[in-house]
Amino acid sequence: MKTLFLYNWQVRNDWFSWCEDVSEDELLKTRIGGVGGILKTLYHIVYLEYSWIHSVVQGKADFGQEPFEAHSSLRQVQDLSMQFHAEVEPFVMSWTSEMERNELTLLRDNGEWITYKHGEIMRHVIAHEIHHMGQLSVWAREIGREPITANLLRRGLFN
Amino acid sequence: MKTLFLYNWQVRNDWFSWCEDVSEDELLKTRIGGVGGILKTLYHIVYLEYSWIHSVVQGKADFGQEPFEAHSSLRQVQDLSMQFHAEVEPFVMSWTSEMERNELTLLRDNGEWITYKHGEIMRHVIAHEIHHMGQLSVWAREIGREPITANLLRRGLFN
Repeated sequence: MKTLFLYNWQVRNDWFSWCEDVSEDELLKTRIGGVGGILKTLYHIVYLEYSWIHSVVQGKADFGQEPFEAHSSLRQVQDLSMQFHAEVEPFVMSWTSEMERNELTLLRDNGEWITYKHGEIMRHVIAHEIHHMGQLSVWAREIGREPITANLLRRGLFN
Repeated sequence: MKTLFLYNWQVRNDWFSWCEDVSEDELLKTRIGGVGGILKTLYHIVYLEYSWIHSVVQGKADFGQEPFEAHSSLRQVQDLSMQFHAEVEPFVMSWTSEMERNELTLLRDNGEWITYKHGEIMRHVIAHEIHHMGQLSVWAREIGREPITANLLRRGLFN
């Protein structure tokens, strides 16, 4: 579990560094697929990870999300990522297999109550970020730039 | 570990079904990013998963890969996926935490010998497929179609 979170955080930071060489116009440009743009995707994965982990930590759903427009510069999204990381990291790094089957019950948008296992939520968060990074890799090629590698090997993540 | 493999297999099969409603021209069309096309991506993830797991099972590297051109129809890639799955699934479903630190030593293209832990390889395979499915989701929107959801929740994968 921890390895895939460490992977996502490393890949995310690689993408933040990658963004520093790309114009703000390109980062903000509306694109086809996903949530529709490079910086908006980074904002989206930062917020989603935090919202789920915060809900798990607090024991209740908390998906109040500020609009992207309130954080629409690279620096602001990076700052948000670092700020949220302060809550996310200790929880992930203290993860044990005993926590897999703990439960979070929340009200879905359709009015139904649903119960998720914490282990299921953690894997959802992992897959969500990797999926969106795959989208960034296509958009990177579209603007003629080499994407961040998705390779998990040789990153020193598994010791 | 198993949950994310089950997730990938379910998502992959959803993409195979999705492909049935898309013309062969669109499936084979060269696209920007990734390995350059929809069917080629499915072939690539099927082969990569098999190659790594086969290497782990056999205890030696085996990355001989037939060219995509030998399997360039939807039916052929689906058949290959099913055929390889017969070896991959029993290994994944018998996975235990004691296997995490088993080792595979192989010769890299650059002539160096390298040793990977089995747990590291398994997570690489997981992340690799999710990443490429993210690319498919962008290309799906480019041809005006709704992509397969990346949502891991409510798939009945975590019992």
